[in-house]
Amino acid sequence: MTEQGTMVHAAVVGGSGYTGVELVRLLSRHPRVRLVCATSRQYPGRGLSEVFPSLQGITDLRFSEPDPREICRNAHVAFSALPHVTSMELVPRLLDEGLKVVDLSADFRFRDAKAYAEWYHPHTRPDLLAEAVYGLPELYAESIRGARLVGNPGCYPTSVILGLAPLLHHRRIDPATIIVDAKSGASGAGRGLVLPMLFCEVNEAFKAYKVAAHRHTPEMEQELSRIHGNPIVISFTPHLVPMTRGMLSTIYARLLSAAEDEVLLSEYRAFYRNAPFVRVAPADQFPGTSQVTGSNYCDIGLKVDPRTGRVIVVSAIDNLVKGASGQAVQNMNLMFDLPETLGLDHAPLFP
Amino acid sequence: MTEQGTMVHAAVVGGSGYTGVELVRLLSRHPRVRLVCATSRQYPGRGLSEVFPSLQGITDLRFSEPDPREICRNAHVAFSALPHVTSMELVPRLLDEGLKVVDLSADFRFRDAKAYAEWYHPHTRPDLLAEAVYGLPELYAESIRGARLVGNPGCYPTSVILGLAPLLHHRRIDPATIIVDAKSGASGAGRGLVLPMLFCEVNEAFKAYKVAAHRHTPEMEQELSRIHGNPIVISFTPHLVPMTRGMLSTIYARLLSAAEDEVLLSEYRAFYRNAPFVRVAPADQFPGTSQVTGSNYCDIGLKVDPRTGRVIVVSAIDNLVKGASGQAVQNMNLMFDLPETLGLDHAPLFP
Amino acid sequence: MTEQGTMVHAAVVGGSGYTGVELVRLLSRHPRVRLVCATSRQYPGRGLSEVFPSLQGITDLRFSEPDPREICRNAHVAFSALPHVTSMELVPRLLDEGLKVVDLSADFRFRDAKAYAEWYHPHTRPDLLAEAVYGLPELYAESIRGARLVGNPGCYPTSVILGLAPLLHHRRIDPATIIVDAKSGASGAGRGLVLPMLFCEVNEAFKAYKVAAHRHTPEMEQELSRIHGNPIVISFTPHLVPMTRGMLSTIYARLLSAAEDEVLLSEYRAFYRNAPFVRVAPADQFPGTSQVTGSNYCDIGLKVDPRTGRVIVVSAIDNLVKGASGQAVQNMNLMFDLPETLGLDHAPLFP
Amino acid sequence: MTEQGTMVHAAVVGGSGYTGVELVRLLSRHPRVRLVCATSRQYPGRGLSEVFPSLQGITDLRFSEPDPREICRNAHVAFSALPHVTSMELVPRLLDEGLKVVDLSADFRFRDAKAYAEWYHPHTRPDLLAEAVYGLPELYAESIRGARLVGNPGCYPTSVILGLAPLLHHRRIDPATIIVDAKSGASGAGRGLVLPMLFCEVNEAFKAYKVAAHRHTPEMEQELSRIHGNPIVISFTPHLVPMTRGMLSTIYARLLSAAEDEVLLSEYRAFYRNAPFVRVAPADQFPGTSQVTGSNYCDIGLKVDPRTGRVIVVSAIDNLVKGASGQAVQNMNLMFDLPETLGLDHAPLFP
Repeated sequence: MTEQGTMVHAAVVGGSGYTGVELVRLLSRHPRVRLVCATSRQYPGRGLSEVFPSLQGITDLRFSEPDPREICRNAHVAFSALPHVTSMELVPRLLDEGLKVVDLSADFRFRDAKAYAEWYHPHTRPDLLAEAVYGLPELYAESIRGARLVGNPGCYPTSVILGLAPLLHHRRIDPATIIVDAKSGASGAGRGLVLPMLFCEVNEAFKAYKVAAHRHTPEMEQELSRIHGNPIVISFTPHLVPMTRGMLSTIYARLLSAAEDEVLLSEYRAFYRNAPFVRVAPADQFPGTSQVTGSNYCDIGLKVDPRTGRVIVVSAIDNLVKGASGQAVQNMNLMFDLPETLGLDHAPLFP
Repeated sequence: MTEQGTMVHAAVVGGSGYTGVELVRLLSRHPRVRLVCATSRQYPGRGLSEVFPSLQGITDLRFSEPDPREICRNAHVAFSALPHVTSMELVPRLLDEGLKVVDLSADFRFRDAKAYAEWYHPHTRPDLLAEAVYGLPELYAESIRGARLVGNPGCYPTSVILGLAPLLHHRRIDPATIIVDAKSGASGAGRGLVLPMLFCEVNEAFKAYKVAAHRHTPEMEQELSRIHGNPIVISFTPHLVPMTRGMLSTIYARLLSAAEDEVLLSEYRAFYRNAPFVRVAPADQFPGTSQVTGSNYCDIGLKVDPRTGRVIVVSAIDNLVKGASGQAVQNMNLMFDLPETLGLDHAPLFP
Repeated sequence: MTEQGTMVHAAVVGGSGYTGVELVRLLSRHPRVRLVCATSRQYPGRGLSEVFPSLQGITDLRFSEPDPREICRNAHVAFSALPHVTSMELVPRLLDEGLKVVDLSADFRFRDAKAYAEWYHPHTRPDLLAEAVYGLPELYAESIRGARLVGNPGCYPTSVILGLAPLLHHRRIDPATIIVDAKSGASGAGRGLVLPMLFCEVNEAFKAYKVAAHRHTPEMEQELSRIHGNPIVISFTPHLVPMTRGMLSTIYARLLSAAEDEVLLSEYRAFYRNAPFVRVAPADQFPGTSQVTGSNYCDIGLKVDPRTGRVIVVSAIDNLVKGASGQAVQNMNLMFDLPETLGLDHAPLFP
Repeated sequence: MTEQGTMVHAAVVGGSGYTGVELVRLLSRHPRVRLVCATSRQYPGRGLSEVFPSLQGITDLRFSEPDPREICRNAHVAFSALPHVTSMELVPRLLDEGLKVVDLSADFRFRDAKAYAEWYHPHTRPDLLAEAVYGLPELYAESIRGARLVGNPGCYPTSVILGLAPLLHHRRIDPATIIVDAKSGASGAGRGLVLPMLFCEVNEAFKAYKVAAHRHTPEMEQELSRIHGNPIVISFTPHLVPMTRGMLSTIYARLLSAAEDEVLLSEYRAFYRNAPFVRVAPADQFPGTSQVTGSNYCDIGLKVDPRTGRVIVVSAIDNLVKGASGQAVQNMNLMFDLPETLGLDHAPLFP
């Protein structure tokens, strides 16, 4: 269905949150995609551009109820931006109808149903967990190409795994010393009505949240352990930054032996030589979030601190693009044998 | 040179300011443009992506000195993002070498050298003023198509002229009663080092500036007068909003006779039926700046207030796109017989 | 009860919104006030400092239910920060118990029950409307001193009436030409959970709202008409600024005859010579909101535009202080024969 | 000179930066201080309220040149907000004239001239280094009371030392494992004109800076080592947050043996029982910066992570108050035998 010229028909399930509207932004301009369906329990029957005036003139689609038959009627692929558990209920039905699915919830990211159950909820479809592929193309492009179901990574895990993979791969660091101090813009919290996300609560404020208790922790540990070959336990503290988009992870670990910045940076460049969306910074430069806004890039810098024997890695993404919807489209490109960067070549919006 | 498949070679002169880097963002992804030169007095010899890390992997170009020969060597068109007066010196030399020029300064926006001199500086090339076309495609597409030199409109004039043109065209309002209260994000002030533009001076602050004294006033009056056929004098007050991108103009005028919102809105839709970047809002809806961020759209809403007999028009643009660099590319498309929207079909970045 | 040394016992009714917590901030440090009660339907029984960690160590009070007997047990004065209509039900009961009341809702701002009914809701206590004093001390200090019930002005009316009073008083302008373009920080919308006030909806966005339909319009018209002696109808457009605190009104009117800036400014200074919280700017200077943050000041600047025959007035307040809670405390000071500035002499927080 | 009723005459040297204007804000409302002098090389002769309109009506003082005789003529105490090295030149002359001095630069914070020289500049007055007292009242109140010269701590060190002192004092943690990930609002960078502090560079951006190279590192290490009794080396990474005020430090260390949150929190409360500006949060609560804005508080929360054996401490201050000018006034209060909280009892400005 993806031979030259044919179009992939895509459905966005749960389209009225921020990852949903970001999927619509990306898919509506993707040269090989036709957006055929967007669902919303909140706004059924209303035009997407009525709910999101930014979309006026860009799509004439109306939101439909999240009815599986409706979703499946014309679509080849569905992006589920539903909350976890809700997604777990819908996705199997879409697969049964022959769709490919990229699921943006946590429901299909875990290889181990027990780990999922411990941090989330009992899993009702462990069989699908076994089949699902963890959708980080920089590590698993081959599996994603053949996948029917992709669990799209969380935003924090994306920035952290990409930031640490080369160090773990080359056994440069003691995995017991990994500390991740991460910071996210407010769009990561979604569009739900909760007091802490009101403008006056977030603006001119900086805070930590879910200290030592964030659900992205086991997801990171799963993938870092897999790269390293042994179980890894990390410290992870997320923070909320008074800005809309952007995520920056500052990662600390003890080096097993002294190393020069340039040597480690070369290993990063080599590790990501086929990864079009990872940009490794020159020595002594560290990415800020504003240099990736609106794009699918993950920018990485690092420095060795000889005083402490630690390496500090800084990794920056746009949480709504590489941290969610952009990565989902990247996965779709692979699943349909399209060029990995198709529809994702946006230059970042700076300033 | 613009037959199917050939590329327009473009130079950006004054590329290290915010309109400059925005031109690079747009031109580097334009399917029919090859960016061949970017100049900067401040950063000659340095890579664009070194100065703007957002451009890493997007362009390998290095900044060159603003030497006319260098600019002209390979380019078919030059975008001048230089300050006024400086631009007036360079542009004639580029034209002499056969380039087409889109000038983003105020130097070629005026039809009358006296008006320019009164608000800016004596004009050294009134002959070119006579030749230059005011680059507002929604009004002057035909002239722009044949132009060698286009004076790209100011950001405030773009939002105000588009907001008022249908009302003046249909003689709906008393032009002596026009009041424009406009608000701009901070990127409109450029990247120069001045105290009032420090983060802590702009953040959590809202203020008026250049009250009854802003140089965009005569530019608006020139164009509004031209549409109306008689000289128009307006009140114009710009304000600085603590945000990066976005411009919103709230425009007041007395209606000559009572009118329904819907009638006026229909006139707007008809007036702009061939204008792909103007989106007229439904009745009782008013555009906010965030619905156009990163895009070339100008969104317009209006309301009649029967209590006062006035109409209030609200017009929103991204000051760096439709208010500067996007409009410049739109003008270039017309000058080279390319589709007007080519390379400019970005969906706005929301949120 | 207010002789030297005795304390005014104050209750804050509706204490868990932004004006409520601001009242607590001001009253808890007021040298002649003891805060004895704060009510909240949402958080009864919980410590104020538990709900607002900023208050830790500042007050040990717990929120109580908004039960009139509880409020009245120890209080001499109640500040009602309840929504309109709700306030109208409670206030009479507090008055009956002998309390003085400063009501921050719209319920007791109108002199005319019909005007209130037209924009809000039928009024159930027109008798109290007749008794209530409009709490703008710069105009009505004497009446406020003797009042039992004060209707604390809206934030927009405060900034606009103070900005226009001298011009109307001196018959400088044609009142039929008044246009008010006002801008407010997000805290003015309160702490309720509504989609448009989420961080990602407000941040990096500027928009108009309730165009030609905002309920503060009749309140302004009532007071402006009273100053002028004849009915005045104005155009009023509020806007939302991506910042927490601050309100700026830009006001336009046609001068009846030419006047110099300095002459008008002298009239302003004379008009406000006994008003400790009004600061008139020097010629050619215009206040920004950040110069009044956290303080009870109203700063005013103006300019005559000889090109159009109009005067432009700019007036800035902190919407939560002079626009709400600070003004309420100022009114209380007058009602209890305390110095007008007592507990309100905060220097603005800049930056 | 500080018996009941007499006033301390204070001079602010280097008054036109953000810490300078913050000193003026605090001192102008201090009940036992008379501000007699403020110097500025940039604005000599100009009124403070002309340069900072927020100060209109609050002080009539004019900036003078930073001439030592002028400063000393009437002052009992000088606050130096000059840059380092510049301060080192002026301070000895003020001391010679009999003034007490609180120096806000780094010049008198170090006990060891070599440490200062290594990170800053050769020290010209090591004798004064030996005499100067490190101005952290929570640790050194007694020494400060008798001091002639106080080196006011850096903002980062204040938040970090207060956050770690009880853990080190009680030998709860392995000092070799301390990692400090700190975040600051933009006002910490001062009011100098540098490109990275323009609004559009800071807004909607989050970044690390001076990774493993910030000059506050040795200052923290000096004080942490002193508390612990042995030399401590830490990892410290500062970040810039798109907000004006506020600093939050997230601190990680390995516990030497398991401990309950509540036990550690009790130790914190006991350690700070006489410290009026330190507020320890309840278990499972973590301070955000907005709960201390405009106040001299340092708020601290912590959590033990049994999965990793680490404790995570979060500490929040307003960088301009407890991190600079407020702490300087707190030091002055001690030096002049005034109540420690005098003039500093501001309730935080929330929201």
